[in-house]
Amino acid sequence: MQIITLTTDFGTKDWFVGTMKGVILGIAPRAAIVDLTHEIPAGDIRAGAFALAAGYRFFPEGTVHVAVIDPGVGGARKAIAVQTANYHFVGPDNGVLSWALAKEKIKSVRWLKNSDNFLQPISQTFHGRDIFAPVAAHLSCGALIRKFGPAQKDFVRLRWPQPRVRRNRIEGEVVFVDRFGNAMTNIENGGLNTRRDLEIFAGPKRLCQVKAFYQSVPAGHAVAVPGSNGFLEIAVNGGSAAKRFGLKIGDRVHIRWR
Amino acid sequence: MQIITLTTDFGTKDWFVGTMKGVILGIAPRAAIVDLTHEIPAGDIRAGAFALAAGYRFFPEGTVHVAVIDPGVGGARKAIAVQTANYHFVGPDNGVLSWALAKEKIKSVRWLKNSDNFLQPISQTFHGRDIFAPVAAHLSCGALIRKFGPAQKDFVRLRWPQPRVRRNRIEGEVVFVDRFGNAMTNIENGGLNTRRDLEIFAGPKRLCQVKAFYQSVPAGHAVAVPGSNGFLEIAVNGGSAAKRFGLKIGDRVHIRWR
Amino acid sequence: MQIITLTTDFGTKDWFVGTMKGVILGIAPRAAIVDLTHEIPAGDIRAGAFALAAGYRFFPEGTVHVAVIDPGVGGARKAIAVQTANYHFVGPDNGVLSWALAKEKIKSVRWLKNSDNFLQPISQTFHGRDIFAPVAAHLSCGALIRKFGPAQKDFVRLRWPQPRVRRNRIEGEVVFVDRFGNAMTNIENGGLNTRRDLEIFAGPKRLCQVKAFYQSVPAGHAVAVPGSNGFLEIAVNGGSAAKRFGLKIGDRVHIRWR
Repeated sequence: MQIITLTTDFGTKDWFVGTMKGVILGIAPRAAIVDLTHEIPAGDIRAGAFALAAGYRFFPEGTVHVAVIDPGVGGARKAIAVQTANYHFVGPDNGVLSWALAKEKIKSVRWLKNSDNFLQPISQTFHGRDIFAPVAAHLSCGALIRKFGPAQKDFVRLRWPQPRVRRNRIEGEVVFVDRFGNAMTNIENGGLNTRRDLEIFAGPKRLCQVKAFYQSVPAGHAVAVPGSNGFLEIAVNGGSAAKRFGLKIGDRVHIRWR
Repeated sequence: MQIITLTTDFGTKDWFVGTMKGVILGIAPRAAIVDLTHEIPAGDIRAGAFALAAGYRFFPEGTVHVAVIDPGVGGARKAIAVQTANYHFVGPDNGVLSWALAKEKIKSVRWLKNSDNFLQPISQTFHGRDIFAPVAAHLSCGALIRKFGPAQKDFVRLRWPQPRVRRNRIEGEVVFVDRFGNAMTNIENGGLNTRRDLEIFAGPKRLCQVKAFYQSVPAGHAVAVPGSNGFLEIAVNGGSAAKRFGLKIGDRVHIRWR
Repeated sequence: MQIITLTTDFGTKDWFVGTMKGVILGIAPRAAIVDLTHEIPAGDIRAGAFALAAGYRFFPEGTVHVAVIDPGVGGARKAIAVQTANYHFVGPDNGVLSWALAKEKIKSVRWLKNSDNFLQPISQTFHGRDIFAPVAAHLSCGALIRKFGPAQKDFVRLRWPQPRVRRNRIEGEVVFVDRFGNAMTNIENGGLNTRRDLEIFAGPKRLCQVKAFYQSVPAGHAVAVPGSNGFLEIAVNGGSAAKRFGLKIGDRVHIRWR
C-alpha cells in the first residue's frame, strides 16, 4: 500500500496538481494519491500547516504527506523530507510541516540536496513537480530517506498559539474557519466537561453555550461544540458562525464556567 | 474491483474529504474512491439527493455510494446502509439516498448501530469520517450488511415532483441548474417526440422550441433538449439559460404541442 | 499501468466528471484516473488546448489523455482519437487537442465512428460520458485505435501565436493567467539569457526585469521569470501580476535588452 497525500495552494483551475500526479505515477505507478486540499490561500503557510496537522493522522502508517505552500520557491529556503515513527513528510522548510511534526516522533530530517532523483531540468518556480513529487514517489516505493541528502538537526517551526488556563476561564483564539463558517479555536476538547455550564465569549461579547452537537440548539441558533479535529468550535446550527459573529482567524475568544 | 463514490457538501477547501479517504484506504487499501461532487450547497439534502440519483447508475455493479449531506449530524437522525440489487448506499437517513433508491430494487435497509467498525472516538460533528467512511470501506471489502446493525423496514423518502400530463401539454418544474446554466426539468425525455413541434414555456412566457441538441439553434439562441440525465433541459447554445430566463429550482415550466 | 487524464470544462459542482469516471472504471477497473483540470471556462477551446499542452508530457508513456471542451457536442464536429509516439489523445476534433499534438509525433488519427464501444443510448449532450470515456478506457486496456473508426488525414488545428524576434527585442503576448495571477507569455525560456539585463514591457509600459526566480526581488515587487512550463511569465513576488498590471490573455508584451 502506497499512499501519498497532497496539500497545496495550487488551486484546481490550472494543471499544476495534475502534473505532480503524472510525475508521481511515472515513478510509483501503484500509488494512491489523495488530495488533502489544494485551496490553501496562495502563500499562506499557517493555513497549510493547519490543514496538514488536522488531516494527516487519519491516513494509514507509511503514508507520505507532501505539503507545498512555497512562496520562497527557487530562493534560499531549503527543501526537506522528515521521517517520523509513522509517516514521511515532504515539503519546503518554511514551517508548513511543523504543526503536524509537533505531534509526531521524529526519526530523521533530511535536506533534499541530492538532485539525482529530481525531475530535470529543475524549474525555479515549481519544486512541487520537480523535487517534492519525485522524492515523495521514491519514498512511497521504499527508498531510504538518507539517500536524498544530508541530515539536518531541526526544521523551521511555526509558533502554535497556546490557550491560557485561568482560574475560571480558558483564553484562546480562532485558528481556522471552515467552509460551513464554523470557527475552530485552539481550545482542546479534552479539557472540557460539556455537562457543566460553559459559555463562550469573543472579547466581552457572549456568543453561546457549549453543547454536545450542532442540533443541541434550534436551527439558526449558535452553539459551541467539541469539533471533529479535537478543538472547540463555534457554530450556528444550519448557518455560519463566522458570518453571524464576524469571526476570523486570530480573534480572541474565551470560555467561562460558573 | 472496489469502487466507493462520495457525494457531500464538504467542499474542497478543507481537509474533510481527504480524511474520509484516509480512513477508507486504511481499511480498503485497494479501493478506487471517486468524487461524485463535494459542492452540494451546505445542508441542501434535495440537491444531494438529485446529484446522487443522477450519477450513481453509471458505476459498475458492486459500487458503494456514500452521500453525506448531514445537517442533523450528532442528533436524532439515524445512519443507514442500504443494499440494492446492484449497489450499496451509505449515509444519513434524511432522504439524501431516497431518489437514487427509488429506482433500485431494495434488498436490505440497516440502521448503523453497531459501533464496532466505527472510527473511535466518534465525533458528534463528522460522521462522514467516523461512521460512513469505515462502513463503506468494510462493505466494499465484502462485509455483510447485516453486521452493521438491525434491519429497518423503510427509509426517509423525499417527495419527487411528478410532472402532470394534460391533453395538449405536460406541466413540470425546474429541478436542477448545472454549471453551464442549463435548467433541468422533471419532464422525462422518454415521453417526448422531438420530431413534432414542441415548445417550452415558463409560466405564460414562451422560452424556445425542443430540438435534438444544443447546436440545433444558432449560437446565443435558446433551445430545450433531451438531457443526458433522462430529462428535458432548457439551454442556450454557448450561453446560460438560467441567466437568460432567470430560471431557478422550483420554477414551473410546461411543454406544449400543436 | 493504465493512466487516463481528464481535461474538461465540466466544473466539479455537478456529477458529470464522476459519471465519466464510473464509465471508465466499468471498462478499465485498474485505471488510475487523473484530473488535469475541470475548470476550463465553459466552451473555451483555447484555454483547454493550452492546459492540455502544458500538462500532458509529465505523464508516463502510454497515458491516455482525454480533453472534453465541446461546445459543438451533438452537432457536426467529429469525435477523434489520435495515437502518437508516446500517448493516446481522445476528444472532439475542434482544436482542443491540437497544441499538445503539435509537439508529438503523430502515428494515427481516427474518426470515432464505430459506436460498438459507446455507452448506449448515446446522449446528444454528453459525449464525454458516452463516447470519450469508454473509448479512452478501451484504449488504456490495449484496444487498437483502428477498431474505433476510419483513418483521418489530419485534425483541426488552432493557430499558436508565434513570438517575433526583432533586432533588440522579442514581441509576444500573454497566453494564460494562472491561479496566482502569474501571466504566462508565448516567449520561450530557451532563447533567453537571464544573466543579461532583460526588461519586459506591456505596450510602452515597462513592467519589470527578468530574473531567475520569484524571490529575486523583494516581496510585492514584479519580476519576470522563466516559468515551469517553458515560457517566460510575469509575476509579483507574493502578489498577482495580473491584478497589478491588469494583464489578460492576448495582451501584447515584449522583452528588450540593451
